[in-house]
Amino acid sequence: MKKVAIIMGSDSDLPVVEKAINKLKALQVPCEAHVFSAHRTPNAAADFAKTAKENGFGVIISAAGKAAHLGGVLAAYTTLPIIGLPIKSSTMDGLDSLLSTVQMPSGVPVATVAIDGAENAAILAAQMLALSDDALAQRLSDMRAAMTAAVLEKDEALQKKLQA
Amino acid sequence: MKKVAIIMGSDSDLPVVEKAINKLKALQVPCEAHVFSAHRTPNAAADFAKTAKENGFGVIISAAGKAAHLGGVLAAYTTLPIIGLPIKSSTMDGLDSLLSTVQMPSGVPVATVAIDGAENAAILAAQMLALSDDALAQRLSDMRAAMTAAVLEKDEALQKKLQA
Amino acid sequence: MKKVAIIMGSDSDLPVVEKAINKLKALQVPCEAHVFSAHRTPNAAADFAKTAKENGFGVIISAAGKAAHLGGVLAAYTTLPIIGLPIKSSTMDGLDSLLSTVQMPSGVPVATVAIDGAENAAILAAQMLALSDDALAQRLSDMRAAMTAAVLEKDEALQKKLQA
Amino acid sequence: MKKVAIIMGSDSDLPVVEKAINKLKALQVPCEAHVFSAHRTPNAAADFAKTAKENGFGVIISAAGKAAHLGGVLAAYTTLPIIGLPIKSSTMDGLDSLLSTVQMPSGVPVATVAIDGAENAAILAAQMLALSDDALAQRLSDMRAAMTAAVLEKDEALQKKLQA
Amino acid sequence: MKKVAIIMGSDSDLPVVEKAINKLKALQVPCEAHVFSAHRTPNAAADFAKTAKENGFGVIISAAGKAAHLGGVLAAYTTLPIIGLPIKSSTMDGLDSLLSTVQMPSGVPVATVAIDGAENAAILAAQMLALSDDALAQRLSDMRAAMTAAVLEKDEALQKKLQA
Amino acid sequence: MKKVAIIMGSDSDLPVVEKAINKLKALQVPCEAHVFSAHRTPNAAADFAKTAKENGFGVIISAAGKAAHLGGVLAAYTTLPIIGLPIKSSTMDGLDSLLSTVQMPSGVPVATVAIDGAENAAILAAQMLALSDDALAQRLSDMRAAMTAAVLEKDEALQKKLQA
Amino acid sequence: MKKVAIIMGSDSDLPVVEKAINKLKALQVPCEAHVFSAHRTPNAAADFAKTAKENGFGVIISAAGKAAHLGGVLAAYTTLPIIGLPIKSSTMDGLDSLLSTVQMPSGVPVATVAIDGAENAAILAAQMLALSDDALAQRLSDMRAAMTAAVLEKDEALQKKLQA
Amino acid sequence: MKKVAIIMGSDSDLPVVEKAINKLKALQVPCEAHVFSAHRTPNAAADFAKTAKENGFGVIISAAGKAAHLGGVLAAYTTLPIIGLPIKSSTMDGLDSLLSTVQMPSGVPVATVAIDGAENAAILAAQMLALSDDALAQRLSDMRAAMTAAVLEKDEALQKKLQA
Repeated sequence: MKKVAIIMGSDSDLPVVEKAINKLKALQVPCEAHVFSAHRTPNAAADFAKTAKENGFGVIISAAGKAAHLGGVLAAYTTLPIIGLPIKSSTMDGLDSLLSTVQMPSGVPVATVAIDGAENAAILAAQMLALSDDALAQRLSDMRAAMTAAVLEKDEALQKKLQA
Repeated sequence: MKKVAIIMGSDSDLPVVEKAINKLKALQVPCEAHVFSAHRTPNAAADFAKTAKENGFGVIISAAGKAAHLGGVLAAYTTLPIIGLPIKSSTMDGLDSLLSTVQMPSGVPVATVAIDGAENAAILAAQMLALSDDALAQRLSDMRAAMTAAVLEKDEALQKKLQA
Repeated sequence: MKKVAIIMGSDSDLPVVEKAINKLKALQVPCEAHVFSAHRTPNAAADFAKTAKENGFGVIISAAGKAAHLGGVLAAYTTLPIIGLPIKSSTMDGLDSLLSTVQMPSGVPVATVAIDGAENAAILAAQMLALSDDALAQRLSDMRAAMTAAVLEKDEALQKKLQA
Repeated sequence: MKKVAIIMGSDSDLPVVEKAINKLKALQVPCEAHVFSAHRTPNAAADFAKTAKENGFGVIISAAGKAAHLGGVLAAYTTLPIIGLPIKSSTMDGLDSLLSTVQMPSGVPVATVAIDGAENAAILAAQMLALSDDALAQRLSDMRAAMTAAVLEKDEALQKKLQA
Repeated sequence: MKKVAIIMGSDSDLPVVEKAINKLKALQVPCEAHVFSAHRTPNAAADFAKTAKENGFGVIISAAGKAAHLGGVLAAYTTLPIIGLPIKSSTMDGLDSLLSTVQMPSGVPVATVAIDGAENAAILAAQMLALSDDALAQRLSDMRAAMTAAVLEKDEALQKKLQA
Repeated sequence: MKKVAIIMGSDSDLPVVEKAINKLKALQVPCEAHVFSAHRTPNAAADFAKTAKENGFGVIISAAGKAAHLGGVLAAYTTLPIIGLPIKSSTMDGLDSLLSTVQMPSGVPVATVAIDGAENAAILAAQMLALSDDALAQRLSDMRAAMTAAVLEKDEALQKKLQA
Repeated sequence: MKKVAIIMGSDSDLPVVEKAINKLKALQVPCEAHVFSAHRTPNAAADFAKTAKENGFGVIISAAGKAAHLGGVLAAYTTLPIIGLPIKSSTMDGLDSLLSTVQMPSGVPVATVAIDGAENAAILAAQMLALSDDALAQRLSDMRAAMTAAVLEKDEALQKKLQA
Repeated sequence: MKKVAIIMGSDSDLPVVEKAINKLKALQVPCEAHVFSAHRTPNAAADFAKTAKENGFGVIISAAGKAAHLGGVLAAYTTLPIIGLPIKSSTMDGLDSLLSTVQMPSGVPVATVAIDGAENAAILAAQMLALSDDALAQRLSDMRAAMTAAVLEKDEALQKKLQA
């Protein structure tokens, strides 16, 4: 199976990014994670993107905050799908990260998920890979069914609580 | 090849959506377009999503404005990747469409592109399908190379203009 | 009397929603509360809305955060009035929840109250039911009079405090 | 049947408000419209609200822009449900009108619809009255079914257009 | 001297409002403070405004949060200058309070100060009264001179700290 | 009577500012208008503020857009009340002008009116001067009464229109 | 003298950028302008930045809209000062361009000017170069004096107009 | 070498500003810091700016929050480059500070860095001075190389952590 790369702009993003790593593991999708900054290590970021396909990656998740250029920088060097994960930072409540990630000019998309939405970045990557992997597609369906069941169980628990 | 579906919440979205249709045609990706509203035709939208995979679709683009629930509604009924295309409407400059589309809760992602970013929605869909289609991947690379060349030509034209 | 349903998208919304439950109890309006997610349990949400009228419900309060589609999804399957209660989540200070709830397209309204405004959601539901229930209308008037008296008492207490 | 009142803060709001009047007529809901300003004619606004119930009104729609206090002022003098219709003005794209209308403090709700969402204000008023009027409830269901059919017809038209 | 009235919409605003009371005391401007809600005690608020002038008040400070209608409601019943003090509440970071207060329609101004800017509300009130009170004008000038001196002292302290 | 000064940061603000001039004339309040920029003519702005009181001015209206520093700059050199009139410019819909004007730090208030709210700036200035001018206070009351009558006439006209 | 480079992300930015070119010409600062996209021609942009210093450039102005990554991309490859000029595009009123440009992470600054503030970008570049060029510093002082005079002339013209 | 001045509007800004002082020290750039308020000590601020050049300063960093006029006030009295450092205050999450600083009118630029971006303000100042100081330019290059190395080390550490 093609691998998923998770590139974060700073190791301070790791507490959020770890949720993506764990979700990919739960879906049995191989992944690698790196700290590459669009601004401090532009060559490393560009090189990673340029060689990602030949190195067996299918999707790249880019996690960055503030003026979050990392997704766009990676997208500039590959036509693999890039998933943008805007990280909430200490000011502007994540709006800067979101707009910097999603408002890409025509020609070079970044598939953006919610601010701090690390689990959804992982699921979206898996959905892309599942287009040609029926077993993974089944695991996604199972995960969804489990989510549905979990909500219904919470509803049952609520009924008991309210009647108590 | 798997098809791309483009679902728009209103036929007033067609002028924006047509750019996605044309881009998919240029990339030789088969697509279908439909007008299904999350609120006015919820059953049609749900049925489309439930049967999309078996009907040969690989990716669904959802175009909607204001409180743009269509992407989320489609995503609720399938684990195919959903691309959310927020449409700018007459108030709030598209911020409502963007936030309604991108801020999905954990478990059910919508891959969001820029407000009115129809071409990028199409390219992103093609990038996903290209994960298992080398010929399409090549067409994406060629399209990117053409874009690069076009910018460089514009730079040359600018140099001539400035020296004139 | 017709019942009020309170549907919350996640059980994490319960601390806010409980204020609505308590206010409805104080107004002697029968209510039920459920955890149904627009995205994780779309069928349960749709089924609830479709059968709400025949099951004796008159008004549905929908509590959800982030890309809050729950109100719109419920409204799509019934013509009972839907009250949207936007829940503040960890990013965007509730603006995403508010816009996702209130900016509904023409034809399918969601009656939106303030972010985290659970008590007002309950009072609004009661006001709707009181249109055909004079006793409830009287209880609403009494509650308003008590609120007025409470403010005037606070003003008196302030006068004493300032003169001390 | 109880009547719906539409109070607008300025006669410049009439082009938006007229859509609400027309929708109520289409639903055969009797309505009256007035120009009363919360700030320029506070007594007229207060008097209207105080006597609305005894004068046969069941619901009041309040249309106002900028610092839109009208909904709150009317709500302060009655426990009838007040529907707030924020009007987009020449600055701030309607955000001021929306927040001034929807963010009501606990105890005095205003049921807010989308910015310039006049049709939805009318439909919401009808939904409230329909709680005790089965014929009106049926007309709302019929209107919804017609909306559904209209979207499906537009989808058919789109299919023909795309295949042409 | 004419008195300043400080009306707050809720006694929860008192911690902010107290700074205005203290500043007025420091400037030897007589003031009264009241808790009157635009929505819960509309008659008390209106009556206060109607009789403020004859009761010896020259300026009214209105402190309120969220959909802050209090300033507008007071302004509707008097032509005395109204100072609007937007209070930051638990959501929206005070933007709702600010826009609800400042964006008044033509004809009925509210002189708005910064969010939670209680001291400035007091100083502004004193500046208005000082237009016909030279002693108060002098106290304002003295207060300004003291502020200037305090900043220059802080600069001196900083120089010592940096050289240490 | 003390005069009102209207300082605008650019002569491009004149179309908005003229409404303030006309309203002051209608209220028989003497006024002067000047173009002084906080950034291009800081000395002229500072000198005007420093000598405003001795030159017979009671109130200064400051009209400026974008990073609107003019109000603060004038306020720094006088303790006369400064009214800030935020002007909407070509970007940001006036939000930059509003926040730059209203969010003054403690000690130096600027009494802010709505974006482009020139008439209210004039009325507010008159209200301040009327604190010690009963004839002007009467003209303000008359103007308010005329506004009230105008709204009621518009309501009557609407009734005729709707019944026609 | 060191040259100023103006890099724009798209030739559609030229109408705004031309004001910077003209202002630099007026200040006799040599400049070159190029169309290089951060996303479509990342190598050209990177190469330009890497060699800018040795090619005689002292300052780079980066003009870009939407998710404006160009300034950050150029800054990543040089320690020359980068001036970010956010361009207003068709949605979000320039807020996306501004935040994408200004909110740079620690270590790699972009000196940001106002949205569409092309003249200021040019003046700022000249101010930087004038640190070691007294003649240019004098031309900047002269330009400022001319601006001051122009405002004072406009004030005189206004006085004549108002007295007419 | 020319010195850098750091002017802060309040000594409460010192915890943020200290990062700029430390960064300038690390780059061996001489600097002075002062507390001068645009509104409380306008003369001190103006005098500092007027004489900054002759006193050996090359660049001025202006740190201020809320309605942050300090950068513009300093810029009005000098043609030295002014760097604006918007400080996040207790409301509005720094948006007011940012817009008040960056949206300067044409003719008088303020080079704005990120909200609370004190280190970048210092680096930007050094970059300007390095235009005519090769040794400083080298120190900036070295600092950048160290930053790059630090990120790559963090990536290596992450690889070890993930493999453990």
